[in-house]
Amino acid sequence: AQLALEKDYEGQRVFETRYRVLLEASNEALVLVDVGTGRILDANSAAAKLFHAGQAALSNSAFTQEFEGRKRADFLDSLIRAAEDESGQAVVAPLRRNGQEVAIRPSAFRNAGERVLLCRIHRTESGPTTSVKQDLS
Amino acid sequence: AQLALEKDYEGQRVFETRYRVLLEASNEALVLVDVGTGRILDANSAAAKLFHAGQAALSNSAFTQEFEGRKRADFLDSLIRAAEDESGQAVVAPLRRNGQEVAIRPSAFRNAGERVLLCRIHRTESGPTTSVKQDLS
Repeated sequence: AQLALEKDYEGQRVFETRYRVLLEASNEALVLVDVGTGRILDANSAAAKLFHAGQAALSNSAFTQEFEGRKRADFLDSLIRAAEDESGQAVVAPLRRNGQEVAIRPSAFRNAGERVLLCRIHRTESGPTTSVKQDLS
Repeated sequence: AQLALEKDYEGQRVFETRYRVLLEASNEALVLVDVGTGRILDANSAAAKLFHAGQAALSNSAFTQEFEGRKRADFLDSLIRAAEDESGQAVVAPLRRNGQEVAIRPSAFRNAGERVLLCRIHRTESGPTTSVKQDLS
């Protein structure tokens, strides 16, 4: 049984590597948020760049903290509602570090019993010819 | 030790779920290819749609088979060379099912001792005003 477990464990290590490769390969800023604590489980380098933060510093920090004037509970609630919305609605919020407005598109999943949000984050354009809707399409 | 291993194992299951969520969340067609066998380890639904194939059927099938007139060894070699190329060069090939030309951008990583390619695949536009180069930028 021990051997079988070890073998299966090795197999699982495979997925941790693949997860990290996919996370970093994404051009989109991606952040995984623990719904229970509101903390960042993982953020890719595109997200760290967008937030003007170190990738390691983001890990385990409060996601709300990256945004301007947001109450933690309200903010998490709006993300959960957006994740439940079938139409793929985004939550728009200004970044704390530079006021840049971003659109957050969250989707929810169960991860070992914990509720987790995968948040895809894009800059919203402020140019006159481009609406937020178009950016999210 | 058994308990510690089990706990760690549980932790690893977390990554399998996250890996599958990220794979499916991607708008890009993504395929993981085992370099040793040339077989598809995993393809997301965007890839299945692009290939006009069932997602389950793709798993464990030869990646080369999805493309027209490609010798397996040559094709894999060109993917490996592209993965090693710093400039992010793409391999362009026509799909077997409809001749549609696609650009494959592979990156290589080690996965439990095996060499694996993460292939990001895009349609190349055939319109006169859009070059392949622009599609890949």
